[in-house]
Amino acid sequence: MNQNKIKRVPVTVGDVVVGNGEVVVQSMTNTDTADIQKTVEQIYQLWQSGSQLVRITVDKEAAAAAVPEIIDRLGAAGCNVPVIGDFHYNGHDLLTKYPNCAKKLAKYRINPGNVGFGRKKDEQFAQIIAIAIANKKPVRIGANWGSFDQKLLAKMMDENNNSEHPLTNDKLMENALIESALSSAKQAQALGLAADKIIISCKVSTVQALVSIYQILANSCSYPLHLGLTEAGMGSKGIVASTAALSILLQQNIGDTIRISLTPEPGQSRTQEVIVAQELLQSMGLKSFAPMVTACPGCGRTTSEFFQELAKKTTNHIRDNMPEWRLKHPGVEDMSVAVMGCIVNGPGESKHADIGISLPGTGETPTSPVFTQGKKSHTLRGENIADEFLTILDDFVASNYN
Amino acid sequence: MNQNKIKRVPVTVGDVVVGNGEVVVQSMTNTDTADIQKTVEQIYQLWQSGSQLVRITVDKEAAAAAVPEIIDRLGAAGCNVPVIGDFHYNGHDLLTKYPNCAKKLAKYRINPGNVGFGRKKDEQFAQIIAIAIANKKPVRIGANWGSFDQKLLAKMMDENNNSEHPLTNDKLMENALIESALSSAKQAQALGLAADKIIISCKVSTVQALVSIYQILANSCSYPLHLGLTEAGMGSKGIVASTAALSILLQQNIGDTIRISLTPEPGQSRTQEVIVAQELLQSMGLKSFAPMVTACPGCGRTTSEFFQELAKKTTNHIRDNMPEWRLKHPGVEDMSVAVMGCIVNGPGESKHADIGISLPGTGETPTSPVFTQGKKSHTLRGENIADEFLTILDDFVASNYN
Repeated sequence: MNQNKIKRVPVTVGDVVVGNGEVVVQSMTNTDTADIQKTVEQIYQLWQSGSQLVRITVDKEAAAAAVPEIIDRLGAAGCNVPVIGDFHYNGHDLLTKYPNCAKKLAKYRINPGNVGFGRKKDEQFAQIIAIAIANKKPVRIGANWGSFDQKLLAKMMDENNNSEHPLTNDKLMENALIESALSSAKQAQALGLAADKIIISCKVSTVQALVSIYQILANSCSYPLHLGLTEAGMGSKGIVASTAALSILLQQNIGDTIRISLTPEPGQSRTQEVIVAQELLQSMGLKSFAPMVTACPGCGRTTSEFFQELAKKTTNHIRDNMPEWRLKHPGVEDMSVAVMGCIVNGPGESKHADIGISLPGTGETPTSPVFTQGKKSHTLRGENIADEFLTILDDFVASNYN
Repeated sequence: MNQNKIKRVPVTVGDVVVGNGEVVVQSMTNTDTADIQKTVEQIYQLWQSGSQLVRITVDKEAAAAAVPEIIDRLGAAGCNVPVIGDFHYNGHDLLTKYPNCAKKLAKYRINPGNVGFGRKKDEQFAQIIAIAIANKKPVRIGANWGSFDQKLLAKMMDENNNSEHPLTNDKLMENALIESALSSAKQAQALGLAADKIIISCKVSTVQALVSIYQILANSCSYPLHLGLTEAGMGSKGIVASTAALSILLQQNIGDTIRISLTPEPGQSRTQEVIVAQELLQSMGLKSFAPMVTACPGCGRTTSEFFQELAKKTTNHIRDNMPEWRLKHPGVEDMSVAVMGCIVNGPGESKHADIGISLPGTGETPTSPVFTQGKKSHTLRGENIADEFLTILDDFVASNYN
C-alpha cells in the first residue's frame, strides 16, 4: 500500500519540522493582512484550534509592512506559530523593499505560475531565492492549475497536439504542473537554496487528478509534500472532496503537511478547516487531537431525539473542556466516547469505547447503562441522564489521564 | 491499486442491481416504522434526494404490520424504491407472522450477532432463510462489531489468549466478524439460498479496522459488499470518518452499495446522509448526481464576504433547480461550476470548469469575467452580479444539456 518509497528530506519551518513522518496541520487566514489587529486575532484563533503553521497573503506594500508587527504582537501574546507569507506576482518587490517582513516570516510560498512572465520570470525567481538564502528561510514552491502560466500551457498543448502520441489535455496539465514545480525546485537549488529548504505542492481541484499527481510527485522527489485539494468548496461538498483525496494519499504515506481549503459559509469561523484536518488525521489513526464521539445514526428504534441531543451535548462538552483538559490530562485526546441509541449495537459499541452510554430505544426498559473500559460501571435512569453522564465522563477523565 | 480481484455475483434488490460495478447509494429511516405516514414521508424524501434503496427497521409486530401499507402508499405516490427490512432478535417471528411484510419487502437484513443465541441460533436463522427462499428475496448478512455475539467473542478471546501466537484483540475481532458473516452466508447457501441472493457487510466504527476488514472480505468471497462505517457520529466528524474509510476502499474498487451512517443534529434532515454519499461518489469521479461547485477558500485577497455569498447562492440555486433540470436537461449532473474570489486562481480555475466566474479581489479592477467552456463569455459589473451570473448559468444549462 505504501506508494511513497522515497524518504523525504525534512524541512524546518520556524520550530515545526515538515517531512519527518508526522503530518503537520496548516491553515490560511482570510483577513486583510494590512489589518494588523484582525490578522493577529485570526492567526491566534487558528493556532489555538490546532493549526501548526499559519499562512497569510502578502499581496501589497501595506501587507508586507504589517507583517513584523503582526508577528511581534503574536509573540507578545505567547503565540509563536510559524507564519508563512503567500506571494504572487510581486513577491520579489515586497521581500526586497520590506527586509523585516522577509526576516520575520518563517517561510515564503511562491507560485511558479505567476512569479514573473517571459524573461522576467528567471530574474524575479532568483531575486526571491536569494532573499530566502540570505534569511535562511525555507520556500514552498506551490504550483496550482488555476494559476498555471497560460502562455506556457498553450504552447505545451500545441506541441502535444502535434506529437505522434498526444496525451489527453488533463494528463498534459498534470504533467505540466509537476514539471513546473520540480523544475523550479531544481532551479532554486542551482541558485544555492539547500534541498532541506524546499517544500513542494501541485494543487488541483479534482480528486483523481490530485491523487495521480501526488503519487507521481512522491516518487519523483525527496522534498516534503504540502498536500491539499485546492478550491474544495463549501459545506459538506468541500469536506467530502478534501477528505476523499487526502485520505487516499495519506493512506499511501503521501503528504507531509495538509491544508483543507474550505469555503466558509458567510459568517462561519475560519477554524473549521483546522478541525476538519484534525478529524481527518485522527479518524485515520495518524494523530490524536481531541476525544472523538462515536454515535449511531439512529433508526426506527430510536424515535426520540434524546440520543441526538446527548451526542451533541457530549461533543460540545468535550470541545469546551479541551483547552483545560489538554493541559491537565495528557493523553485525553486518545479517549474514545460512545453515545448510542438502542440495545442493538449500544452496549457492544460502548464497550469498545473507553467510555460509552447505551440509551434505551423505544419500548426498551428505560435504563441507560454506562460502560467504562469495557465494563458496565453505572446505570442511569430518570430526567438527569445527560448531566449525570457528563459528570461520570469528567470523573473518568480526571482519574485516567494524569 | 485494485485490491478487488474477485468478480462479484450481482444481486437484484427490487429493480436495483447491486454488484454490477456501479456503486448503489442507500440510506435508512429514523421514523417509527409503525407510524405509517411519517415513514412513508421519510422514505419518499430519501428516495427523492437520490437514495436508490431505503432500509427501515422492523422491530415489533406493529412495524411488521405497517410494512405492506407503507409500500403500497409509496407505490401509489409513484415511488417504487426498494424497501429493505432490518431485523434483530425477532426477525424469524415477525416474518412468519406477517407474510405480507415478508412478501412486500425487497430484501431482508439480518444480523448474525443477534439472530438467535445458543442452539436457537441455527433454527431461527434457517427459519428466516426459508422465508427468503419462498419469497425469492435477497438477504444481507450484516455483521456489526457492536452486536457481535458476546459469549462467542469471550470464548474466542480465551482460546486466543491460550494460543501460541495470540492475535491482538482488535485483529481477533476483525477476523471474528468476517468469519461470522461468511460462515452465515455459507450456512444460508447450504439451506438453499442462491449465491445471487446474498449481500455481505461487516461494520465497525474505526477507519483502519474497516479498511482492513473489507480488503480481506473482497478477496474472500464473491458476494456484493455493503460498505459503511458504522456509528460514524455527528457533524463534520461523521462526514470525515465515513469519507476517509469509504474513499480508501472505493479507490480499490471495494464496495458495491454504500450507506453513510451520520448522526443527525437535532432537527436536521435525514437526507444529509444521501447527499454526502452522492458527494463522495461524484467527487471521486465514480458517478454524477448534481453539478458541483468549485470555490476558493478565500484569503487576505478576498476580504469581502461577497464571494462566499455567491458560492452559497449558486449552490442553493443548483439544488433548488435540480429536480426540474434532471428531467429537462440530461447530462447537467456532470456540469462543473466555479465561483472564485480573486485574480490569482480565479480565471484559471473558471476556465477548467464548464462555467465559472472570477470575482475581483480587494484592490482589483471591479469587473467579474465569466468563462464558459474555457473562454471568456461575459464581463459583469455593478450591483447585480449575483443575479446576472445565475441567469447566465440558467441559459448555459438550457443551451448545453438537451
